[in-house]
Amino acid sequence: MTKISLEFPDGSKREFNEGVTPLEVAASIGNSLKKSAVAAKVNDFLVDIERPIVQNAKIEIITKKDNEAVEVQRNTAVFLMGAALQQKYPEIRFGERQINNDGFYLDTDKDETQVSVDELEDIMEQMQQIIQSNPQIERKLMDKEDLMQKFSDDPYKSALISAFDSVQIPVYQMGDYLDFGEKALLPQLKDLKYYKLLSVAGAYWQGKSSNPMLQRIYGTAFLNEEDLQADLKRRAEIKERDHRTIGRDLDLFFVDPKVGAGLAYWMPKGATIRRVLERYIIDKEVAAGYEHVYTPILMNLNAYKTSGHWEHYREDMFPPMDMGEGEMLELRPMNCPSHIEIYKHHIHSYRELPIRIAELGMMHRYEKSGALSGLQRVREMTLNDGHTFVALDQIEDEFKKVLQLMMDVYRDFDIDNYTFRLSYRDPANTEKYFDDDEMWNKSQGMLKSAMDDMGLDYYEAEGEAAFYGPKLDVQTKTALGNEETLSTIQLDFMQPERFKLTYVGEDGKEHRPVMIHRGIVSTMERFIAYLMEMYKGAFPTWLAPIQAVIIPVKNDLHLDYAQKLQADMRKLGLRVNIDSRNEKMNYKIREAQTQKIPYTVVIGDQEVNDATVSVRKYGEQDSVQEDISMFVDSVVADVKNYSRTGK
Amino acid sequence: MTKISLEFPDGSKREFNEGVTPLEVAASIGNSLKKSAVAAKVNDFLVDIERPIVQNAKIEIITKKDNEAVEVQRNTAVFLMGAALQQKYPEIRFGERQINNDGFYLDTDKDETQVSVDELEDIMEQMQQIIQSNPQIERKLMDKEDLMQKFSDDPYKSALISAFDSVQIPVYQMGDYLDFGEKALLPQLKDLKYYKLLSVAGAYWQGKSSNPMLQRIYGTAFLNEEDLQADLKRRAEIKERDHRTIGRDLDLFFVDPKVGAGLAYWMPKGATIRRVLERYIIDKEVAAGYEHVYTPILMNLNAYKTSGHWEHYREDMFPPMDMGEGEMLELRPMNCPSHIEIYKHHIHSYRELPIRIAELGMMHRYEKSGALSGLQRVREMTLNDGHTFVALDQIEDEFKKVLQLMMDVYRDFDIDNYTFRLSYRDPANTEKYFDDDEMWNKSQGMLKSAMDDMGLDYYEAEGEAAFYGPKLDVQTKTALGNEETLSTIQLDFMQPERFKLTYVGEDGKEHRPVMIHRGIVSTMERFIAYLMEMYKGAFPTWLAPIQAVIIPVKNDLHLDYAQKLQADMRKLGLRVNIDSRNEKMNYKIREAQTQKIPYTVVIGDQEVNDATVSVRKYGEQDSVQEDISMFVDSVVADVKNYSRTGK
Repeated sequence: MTKISLEFPDGSKREFNEGVTPLEVAASIGNSLKKSAVAAKVNDFLVDIERPIVQNAKIEIITKKDNEAVEVQRNTAVFLMGAALQQKYPEIRFGERQINNDGFYLDTDKDETQVSVDELEDIMEQMQQIIQSNPQIERKLMDKEDLMQKFSDDPYKSALISAFDSVQIPVYQMGDYLDFGEKALLPQLKDLKYYKLLSVAGAYWQGKSSNPMLQRIYGTAFLNEEDLQADLKRRAEIKERDHRTIGRDLDLFFVDPKVGAGLAYWMPKGATIRRVLERYIIDKEVAAGYEHVYTPILMNLNAYKTSGHWEHYREDMFPPMDMGEGEMLELRPMNCPSHIEIYKHHIHSYRELPIRIAELGMMHRYEKSGALSGLQRVREMTLNDGHTFVALDQIEDEFKKVLQLMMDVYRDFDIDNYTFRLSYRDPANTEKYFDDDEMWNKSQGMLKSAMDDMGLDYYEAEGEAAFYGPKLDVQTKTALGNEETLSTIQLDFMQPERFKLTYVGEDGKEHRPVMIHRGIVSTMERFIAYLMEMYKGAFPTWLAPIQAVIIPVKNDLHLDYAQKLQADMRKLGLRVNIDSRNEKMNYKIREAQTQKIPYTVVIGDQEVNDATVSVRKYGEQDSVQEDISMFVDSVVADVKNYSRTGK
Repeated sequence: MTKISLEFPDGSKREFNEGVTPLEVAASIGNSLKKSAVAAKVNDFLVDIERPIVQNAKIEIITKKDNEAVEVQRNTAVFLMGAALQQKYPEIRFGERQINNDGFYLDTDKDETQVSVDELEDIMEQMQQIIQSNPQIERKLMDKEDLMQKFSDDPYKSALISAFDSVQIPVYQMGDYLDFGEKALLPQLKDLKYYKLLSVAGAYWQGKSSNPMLQRIYGTAFLNEEDLQADLKRRAEIKERDHRTIGRDLDLFFVDPKVGAGLAYWMPKGATIRRVLERYIIDKEVAAGYEHVYTPILMNLNAYKTSGHWEHYREDMFPPMDMGEGEMLELRPMNCPSHIEIYKHHIHSYRELPIRIAELGMMHRYEKSGALSGLQRVREMTLNDGHTFVALDQIEDEFKKVLQLMMDVYRDFDIDNYTFRLSYRDPANTEKYFDDDEMWNKSQGMLKSAMDDMGLDYYEAEGEAAFYGPKLDVQTKTALGNEETLSTIQLDFMQPERFKLTYVGEDGKEHRPVMIHRGIVSTMERFIAYLMEMYKGAFPTWLAPIQAVIIPVKNDLHLDYAQKLQADMRKLGLRVNIDSRNEKMNYKIREAQTQKIPYTVVIGDQEVNDATVSVRKYGEQDSVQEDISMFVDSVVADVKNYSRTGK
C-alpha cells in the first residue's frame, strides 16, 4: 500500500497509508483525541473527519473546543436544517447556502408559499427530533456525472453541481436526505447543541432579480451557550439600531422597489427630521461664509465628458436621455460640474477668494439592486455638498475652517464615535497621480499641519489619495458594522485644469484656483440613517418630528386647555400633537414612549386648576408636575441647545 | 378692354378696366384721396397701391391716417432697413421677416460677425439718407422661375421664393435692392417718419436649432410721434419689469442652453430668495395642517401608465430610462402619483380625513426649446404642490380652507392683480367627462357656494373643466403680457379610481376619497419670476437677498463698528453685507440702489460717536439719522410683517 507523510503542527512527520482519514490519524495519537476530534485542517483547508487524505500534507486535528469547530457546528446545523425541512416539506428545493462569521443561511423554494418566520420554531423542533433519533450520516465521494443525473429534475442542484470542477464530489447522506460539497460535519449530531434559526428574507436565485425569488433562512451555531447568548443579544441590539427597523416602526420612510428600487419616500415624520437638518446645515454654512445655490440635477453629457466622469464612472451613472436637437442630458452623479458653472458665470479676482459654493444637491447614482439598503444605499440622494475655490496658499486656512465647522456640527449632534484618516498619494508611485509635485507636497504638508495645529488625532494612509488630490475622511461604523464616511474634505487639482478655471491674481495675470470638495453631513439619506442608528430612533428634541404630545385625561374637561397649550407652543415653532383618541390614558402614554416622543404631557383637573402640566420625559419612568411656562421654556431651550429633554 | 366691377365700403359699385390699380381708383374719386392714399384693402386683403386688380372685388382705399396704414408703415420700414443693410454690408443675406402688432423684424446673416445692437443707430442713419435721396421704387410682378434663378446662390431667398404657390410674385425694386412678397409699401418713402430699430437677438433659420443662427433685427413704426413715443415708453417698462433682465442685472439666475436648455442655475442671491420663499410656504402649510413629505423625482413608468399620463401626456414627458432588470424609470412630470404612494402606504379611516400631503416637488416637463423663457418656462421646476384626500361632503370646507390660505399668502406678498376663474364641465357634453353626475353637480355647487360665502368675485367657464373634475384658477399677467396661472385648486375624481384609493368609512366599508390638487405659489421658478416682475426687482425686506449694506466712510476708522453691527444683525438672522471696497462712497451708495437693497447704512465719525446709523431706504433720496437699536428693530419688524422698509 502506498504511504503518505503527514506533518503535524509541531513540525513532526509521520507516515500513514494513502487514504487515511483524519479520524484514523487522531485515533493513532490517542483515544481522547479521537473522541474530541470533529474535523481536520489538511494543508490549512478544513475537511471532514472521515475525508480520506491521498497525498503528503500538513495536518491539524480540530477538536470540539477549537475555534475552527464553530464552522463545523454551522456546517452541521445547515445540513440538519435541510434534512428537517425536507421531512416537513417533501417537495422543498434548496438553492445556495453559506457559512460565514455571522452564522449560516440556506436558500429554499417551496413553490406556493415560502417558509415563514413563524415556522422556524417548528423546524428547530424537527431538527431536535432528528438529533434524538441519532441517525447515521454516510460520507462518501460520488462521480459528478452520477450526481448530475440523480438531480436532473432539480434546476438549482443541477446548477450547483455543475459549478464543481472536480470529477468526484463529497456527499453526505442521512436517510433520504443527501447533501454535497467540500465541508466538515460533526461526527455525531448530538454534539450540535447551541444553534438557533433566526430569520427569513427573500433572495433572488444567484443574486439576479430576473431569477425566481427564493426564501433565505438564516441561523447561527456556536461552541457553547454563552457564545450563542452573547450573539443573540448582539443581534437584538443591531435590530434595535437598524435604521430600516426604526424607519418602519416610527413611520419615517419607506422604499418600494415596485415604484423604484433605491428611491426613498420620506413620510411626514421622517421629512420633518430631514427639513430640520437641512435648515440647520444651510444656516450653519451660510453663517460660515458659504453661498448656497440651486443648480439643475440634469446636465449636458458633455460636461461629464470634460470632467472625466463619463470615462471613469459611467457604470455608476444613470442612462443618458436623448432630448432631440443633438442634446444628451444626464442625471448628475455629482455636483462639482454644476458648481463650476456657477464659478465660471463671472470673472473672479484674487480678492474674492476663497469662493464657497454650497448646495443640498440632489444626485443619482446607479447602485446595483443587491447593494441597495434602506436610506444607507440609495439611487437618489441629496448631498450636503460644497466646493471652495482657493489659491494654493489658502488651502491650510480653508481646511481648518472646514474642520472647525465639522467639529461644531458633530458637537451639535453629539457625534463622537469617529476617526480621521488623511489620504496621501503613494510616494513610490507619484506618476499615477496628477502631475504637480509642488502642489502635492505643499498641500499634503498643509493638511497635516492643520490637523496637528488643531490637536486632532488622525492616521495617515499613503497611496489612498484620489488621482487628483489628497483628502481627509471622517470614518464611522453603521449598526450593521459597515464602515462609512461621515464627512470628507477632498482637494482637487484636476477639475480646475479640465474646466480651465481661472482667477485674476494680484499680478493681473490669470491663475488656476484649487478646488476643495467637502461634505459635512454627507447625504440627507445616509446621515439620517446614521442618526437613527446612533439615537436608536430617540431623536433629541430639536430633531424629533413630534417634540411633545399632550394627553387630556378627559376630552370634555381638559381638551380646551390642551389645545391652548398646543397653540401657544406651535406659535413658538414647536411640534406638538394632542392625543384625544378614544383610548385608555396608559395606552396613549405607552404609545408616546414607543414613538420615542421627548415629552409626554398629561392634563387633568389638577393641571387645569394650577396652570401646570404633568410631564414625563422620554426614557423616564415618572412624571413630574411643572409650572406650564417652565415646561415650555425647557422645550424651547432644548431646541436652542440642540439637546434632549434638558440634557 | 375687359371691365371689372369694384364695390366700395358704402355699397356702391363702379366699373373699371381690368388691371386698374388702387391708386388709379383713388385718383378717379378725387385728387386729395389720391394724395393721401397709401394702400388698399381688396377683398379685405391689404395690397400695394400699385397692385393691379384683375377681377370683381370689394375695395377700400387706405389713407395715411387709417389704422391699417400702420402695417404699411412697418412694411416700408422693413423694406428700407433691408436696403440700408445691403448698402452697408453688400454681402449680407436676409431670412424671414414678420410684421405684427408689436412691430417688425428681419432675420439677417452676415457670415463672420452679425449685426450688433450698437450698429442700429448707424443703420437708421443710412435709412434716413436713402429717404432723403428720394429714390424710385419699382413695383412689378416677376415669374417665380425667373426669381428662383436670380437668387439661385442664396439659400435663404431660394427657400422663401419656393414657398410661394403662385406663378408670379410681386417684386419691389429700389436701385440694386430687390424685395418680394405680397405686401403694401408707402407710395413715397418720405412718408416714413415715425420708426425705430430696437434690438437684435439670435434666431435659428426656420426656427430649427439644427439650422444656422441668424441675427434678428427688431424695429417698429407708427403713424405719428405720440404713438411711437408711447410704444417706446411701454417697451422700456416691459424691459424694466422683464424678469430675465432683472435676473441678469441683480445676478439672481441664469440659463445656459450649452449645459442644458430650460435648466435654471440659481445664483446665491436668487437662491436666497427661493430659500426664504420655500421656508415661508412650508411653514405656512404645516401650520395649516399639511404634512410635508419628500418623494423621489423618478418613478416606475408603470405608475404613469396607471395614471394615464403616459397615454395622454407623453409628448411633454422626458424620455424614460432603462435601468435594466426590466425597470423603466421616468422623471416625473407631476407629483400626484408620488403622493398617492404616500397615501397608500397606510390604511386610512374616515376619522383621519382630510389628509393633506404637500411637497416642494421637483418635476420635469419637456417644453419645446422655442417655448423656453427665463424662469417662466423651464424644463426642470419645483412645484409648491399639495394633494388633499377628502370625503365627498368635505369638499366645500376644504376648498374654503385652501382659498383662505391662498388669500393669506397673496396678502403677505402684496399680490392683488389677479382674477378667479371657476371651470365647470360642459353641460351640453357631459359624456366627455368623468362619469358621475352626482359628483359633478355636488362639487361644482360646493365650489360656487364657497366662493359666494367668502364674498369673492369670479367668473364661470363652462366646458373649461378638466376631464376628471372642476377647478378654480387664479389668473394673472406677466410683464410680457402672457396670461399665467398663479394658483390652482383642482378636484380629481379619476386618480382615486385608477389607483383604487380607499378609506374605511363610519360604516366599516371601503369608500373612495376625492383628491384635491392644489398649488398656492405655483413653481418656485415661475412664482419668483412673477415676483421679480411685480416688484421690479425691489424685493421687500423679508425676501431681499441682501437686506442691508453697511458702508464705512473710512475703513480704518469705521470698519470695526460696521462689523459689530453686521454681526449683531446676522445673529438675528438678517442678511447684511459690508461694502469696504476701495471705492468712492457715492459710488457704493449708487450701487446699493441699483442692486435695490432695502437699507443702505453709512457709518462715519458721528455715527460711531452717537451710536447711530445714517440710513437710506431704497427708493428714497435722503438719509435719516437713527438710533442703532431703532434701526435694527425696524428691519426685524419688516421681516416679521412681510413689509418693505417700514411700509
